[in-house]
Amino acid sequence: MRQELGQALCRDGYLLPTAVAGVYGRDGRFEHLVGAVGAAVSVMAAEVDATVVRYPPAVAADELHRVGYLRSFPHLAGAISVCADTTGRETAIAARLHRGGAWEELLRPSDLAPCPAACYPLYPHLAGRAVGGGKRYDTMGYCFRREPSDDPFRMQLFRMHEIVCVGDRTTVDAFLARAHDFAARLFTDFGLAATRAAATDPFFGSGGRMLAREQLDRDLKQEYVCPTPDGGVALASVNDHETHFTRPYGIIGGDGAPAVSACVGFGLERVVLAAFLQHGPDPADWPGGTQRAFGLPTG
Amino acid sequence: MRQELGQALCRDGYLLPTAVAGVYGRDGRFEHLVGAVGAAVSVMAAEVDATVVRYPPAVAADELHRVGYLRSFPHLAGAISVCADTTGRETAIAARLHRGGAWEELLRPSDLAPCPAACYPLYPHLAGRAVGGGKRYDTMGYCFRREPSDDPFRMQLFRMHEIVCVGDRTTVDAFLARAHDFAARLFTDFGLAATRAAATDPFFGSGGRMLAREQLDRDLKQEYVCPTPDGGVALASVNDHETHFTRPYGIIGGDGAPAVSACVGFGLERVVLAAFLQHGPDPADWPGGTQRAFGLPTG
Repeated sequence: MRQELGQALCRDGYLLPTAVAGVYGRDGRFEHLVGAVGAAVSVMAAEVDATVVRYPPAVAADELHRVGYLRSFPHLAGAISVCADTTGRETAIAARLHRGGAWEELLRPSDLAPCPAACYPLYPHLAGRAVGGGKRYDTMGYCFRREPSDDPFRMQLFRMHEIVCVGDRTTVDAFLARAHDFAARLFTDFGLAATRAAATDPFFGSGGRMLAREQLDRDLKQEYVCPTPDGGVALASVNDHETHFTRPYGIIGGDGAPAVSACVGFGLERVVLAAFLQHGPDPADWPGGTQRAFGLPTG
Repeated sequence: MRQELGQALCRDGYLLPTAVAGVYGRDGRFEHLVGAVGAAVSVMAAEVDATVVRYPPAVAADELHRVGYLRSFPHLAGAISVCADTTGRETAIAARLHRGGAWEELLRPSDLAPCPAACYPLYPHLAGRAVGGGKRYDTMGYCFRREPSDDPFRMQLFRMHEIVCVGDRTTVDAFLARAHDFAARLFTDFGLAATRAAATDPFFGSGGRMLAREQLDRDLKQEYVCPTPDGGVALASVNDHETHFTRPYGIIGGDGAPAVSACVGFGLERVVLAAFLQHGPDPADWPGGTQRAFGLPTG
């Protein structure tokens, strides 16, 4: 069903398939819909005085090491490899390339990795700072997850828009309640069915199953799940990071203790895909409220 | 001078430095300025009925092979490496990661590469198609060039907004004239000094010097160059690709012959940086016309 939705969106030109499964271009109509969801998140971010930050789609690989991403999600992570040591090796490199097909042998992982979630570059930015009671950030960007698939809800490159709070436990708890209000309001405004449910991250391997159980036991992740005939798919999540991101960077709260952090993150393409799934292939036939939320002519 | 501009923009919070040279976050004010330049390019694209397409920041690595990018620019190119063959190797991978620091050994180049220019994913999209007299496209996205530097004009990840024409020689020649009008108009509207000059791409090695000479001889590339005390820096370029991108993909013009293509591309961050360089560190002090073009309050 989800795979058929992807085929229909490609046939109708909203998504532009590429040679790699799970990597799509988008046409102007799809981008308009994505932009409307992003604008709605920005409005909510402004309500909590979030500071806007935007990062490019890659992050220092060291940051992924530092917060344990590579140990928890090696199956989803990537690194940007580059042609090592080009200086003074022109002749050798040119000769190798002209033999053809030897490009990959020249590559070594660089100090950069595709960004796995929009908020990862934020914590090094705050390293060593005192954030007082709490500060909020609005961040959005392309994220990479290595899971080639024909399911359009499993794109390898997609945009995530997050509102993040970093601060004291009390402030962050209040933010978590607000974050749930935001998620519920967004799905109401866009006329989309999404059910709140406790969830876990897709940790790797058998060790990962222990991490997932702990996440459930401590109630650290809640998702807003769109029901589909192939199973539910998360459109947004609300996450309590505790000190996972703040401790490695020495980010301090108002009380001098390590700050904690939390976020609400929306999968922008997924929200748009949910609208097509729930309301049909032609936005002209969507309910008026959904059309209004997406900035479409109503009727 | 350019390096000092980068330091000033980091100090004033417009750019957010990261652990990797040439990779910056941007604050909301900087993003507003980038958005204004992009909107101006979109207006011009709409004037020539360009179809909007947007691609994520990675492209199938095969496409870079197919058009010779890796042979011409191995020093600037990247590939996305991923943890190979995770299935059934959980224990081995987990053990290796728990020893620490062995992440890179697990990586192999995947079928994806960071996109080196906004238009690269467009040509495979048009593969085998007949474009009639000519079609135009509006494309924008993050691009990667491996050149770590403290010069903010040499970001490793930056946005390029391109208007591309694919079609018959006559149509594309008319587009090239229009493209120069667009570039001249944009720099006039934004109140920026930029001088048109013949240019070459940064081809690799001694073979590359021959390619560059041919590019000059055939007058295939013109840049709009912002003068700086450290030398000129291109803010935009107008490029005649001839059949470089169309022949490998069998894109056919109205006459049944291989189509040709051309583009005008704007470096969105570079245009913003040029405004800071030419008009000073505080947008409140910029000339009224520049403020208006950037959508800032005037005066």
